[in-house]
Amino acid sequence: MHTTTVGIIGGGPAGLLLARLLHNSGIDCVVLESRDRAYVEQRQRAGILEQATVDVLRSSGAGERLDREGIVHDGIELRFDRRGHRIDFPGLTGGRRVWIYAQTEVCKDLIALQLADGAPLLFEAQVHSVEGADTDRPVIRYTHEGREQTLTCDYVVGADGFHGVARSAIPESLKRTYERVYPYSWLGILADVPPSCDELIYAHSPRGFALHSMRSPTVSRLYLQVPNGTDPADWSDERIWDELDARFAIDGDWKLERGPITSKAVLPMRSFVTEPMRYGRVLLAGDAAHIVPPTGAKGLNLAAADVIVLARAFARLKETGSAELLDAYSDTCLRRVWRAEHFSYFMTTTLHTDPDQSPFDTRLQISQLDRVAASPHAAAELAENYAGLPIG
Amino acid sequence: MHTTTVGIIGGGPAGLLLARLLHNSGIDCVVLESRDRAYVEQRQRAGILEQATVDVLRSSGAGERLDREGIVHDGIELRFDRRGHRIDFPGLTGGRRVWIYAQTEVCKDLIALQLADGAPLLFEAQVHSVEGADTDRPVIRYTHEGREQTLTCDYVVGADGFHGVARSAIPESLKRTYERVYPYSWLGILADVPPSCDELIYAHSPRGFALHSMRSPTVSRLYLQVPNGTDPADWSDERIWDELDARFAIDGDWKLERGPITSKAVLPMRSFVTEPMRYGRVLLAGDAAHIVPPTGAKGLNLAAADVIVLARAFARLKETGSAELLDAYSDTCLRRVWRAEHFSYFMTTTLHTDPDQSPFDTRLQISQLDRVAASPHAAAELAENYAGLPIG
Repeated sequence: MHTTTVGIIGGGPAGLLLARLLHNSGIDCVVLESRDRAYVEQRQRAGILEQATVDVLRSSGAGERLDREGIVHDGIELRFDRRGHRIDFPGLTGGRRVWIYAQTEVCKDLIALQLADGAPLLFEAQVHSVEGADTDRPVIRYTHEGREQTLTCDYVVGADGFHGVARSAIPESLKRTYERVYPYSWLGILADVPPSCDELIYAHSPRGFALHSMRSPTVSRLYLQVPNGTDPADWSDERIWDELDARFAIDGDWKLERGPITSKAVLPMRSFVTEPMRYGRVLLAGDAAHIVPPTGAKGLNLAAADVIVLARAFARLKETGSAELLDAYSDTCLRRVWRAEHFSYFMTTTLHTDPDQSPFDTRLQISQLDRVAASPHAAAELAENYAGLPIG
Repeated sequence: MHTTTVGIIGGGPAGLLLARLLHNSGIDCVVLESRDRAYVEQRQRAGILEQATVDVLRSSGAGERLDREGIVHDGIELRFDRRGHRIDFPGLTGGRRVWIYAQTEVCKDLIALQLADGAPLLFEAQVHSVEGADTDRPVIRYTHEGREQTLTCDYVVGADGFHGVARSAIPESLKRTYERVYPYSWLGILADVPPSCDELIYAHSPRGFALHSMRSPTVSRLYLQVPNGTDPADWSDERIWDELDARFAIDGDWKLERGPITSKAVLPMRSFVTEPMRYGRVLLAGDAAHIVPPTGAKGLNLAAADVIVLARAFARLKETGSAELLDAYSDTCLRRVWRAEHFSYFMTTTLHTDPDQSPFDTRLQISQLDRVAASPHAAAELAENYAGLPIG
């Protein structure tokens, strides 16, 4: 039987970052990840880091490659009604900005650090259950290398994503869940072509939403709003580029460069929150507790904010014996979570075309976007939320 | 056969204010109102005047009683989650505020002025049709004192409300209409009791929206969200006060004073826009062209903004012969109209409980209201829209 102070279920960015922060504070932990290393390092997810996320990666020692290869962005373009309008993040927020650096790269950096000098990190460790959440010594039961194992912990952190098992440690009778499924998805592609823009373009069009993002100076990441249930196989490369051309069309010079498409995938859009984020000695972090639709790039950053709050709370407990921050964990995080849920909903519903929306609804979307373009307060409200609020 | 420069259909606030402004510029006009004077002076409508509306009433000579009896408000209270949060209009907008002064009083003041020294104002003049909108001499056909009459005009202004005939002068093939009907109504009451607050209270509650407004230091105006189709007769005075108590409930001291209810009426909630607001020599103003739900108090003020733009355009035409402003009328007004439509929709959907809304939707409403309470930019965005944008 193994023991540790903090047993972390999930070796995605939330679990890995928490392990790094705990290790730096001299707190024992073990990370159990169900997939193998290659899978974790390759699954395509988010690609935009907020100021606060970058700050903590740097201060934790995981910012070296990020600073070398990450691309600083000082704004985004909102494109609507065949016009473009730039939102200047540092100018509107007092200096906050975002970085283009994919989640895969964050994970690679954190995994390399952890394997070199960090806490134990077990890949292909299948967690079956968390027991004794309401006792002083909760236990994680898992299978690793063909054997049933137990990890006895002071605390268990469930950072095992929306489909993970940790959330089930909170009794149904104490759990409130909130959910919204959107009537559209994203068809996301990676293409081996330099981005046709210096900053991200969020495009509202009568044909639906499109987003031009990027992974590097030579790799473009683009998204198209598509109906739920869309099969990527129905979208030839030519059809994708033609549709992107139509949605990004603008009065004036602008050209979308085409290149070989190396990946196509359809992503559903969901909002989800579970409350509370803690039961006894089990604490949830990241997607295990909340999901946002990707418009607004909050998911990864919200996960990072959770574990920053959690690492501070564990450090306080170790240093002073006070569980005050730990007891406040759920409330502290949920304020930020609901802010991000609202912002993600706002960005999603302002920019996408609901299949049931009326011409009146479309005009309201344009009116909202016009207002962001015209009013410094409306623009600052978007910029503050996008570049990310300070972690309280 | 009578002739005039500007034939105005409708003697509500839009038509009466336009007549006043044209008269002051030395432009002939005639106002045709289908109801009698007593009806116009008594129909309960809006009660909040924006800064820009007050400015024009004063400069047109109709501000004397408003300045004596109107109540200046420097803010509103948003009440939600059993907490109150004040929005400081002048502090957030650089000095803009609102006035409590009922539409009935605005109409009385403008009617008295017009009958004393203004353009002809005919009550009980039933307009049947507008002909020749696309000619140089459009004609209004109406019945007055039992006789069929015609008024030949240089221009016709349709300020005859949502149910008026003027809008039909725009051919269907050229007209685009946008509409939304909300799944709730307001039960509005007048009560002979001093208001229980110094400023308006907009209350979000799990039981639905409520609004505490006022008409004077001795008359309160209160509203409850009710299902569409509600019969006011089903709401006893006691039931109304009990429900208001429940919706305004707050942690801390606050008491809603009760008094005799002198009026009960159910008001539907609708958003409506017709485009363009001009066809040939017929121009629409106010509710004839657009309706907003009352949350946010934009309806009367939007009508005033329309006729301010229109009066300037007619004055320019008279002074310089240039129809430039007149030709821009529809586009100029529609920018403001859509801003107000969006703001009214925002206030309505943020504060009301949709019968179909999910717990997730409710939490988003609270998150939005929390944000307005926490963020100066979000608060300023609400304050600027509520106190009213300058007329461009």
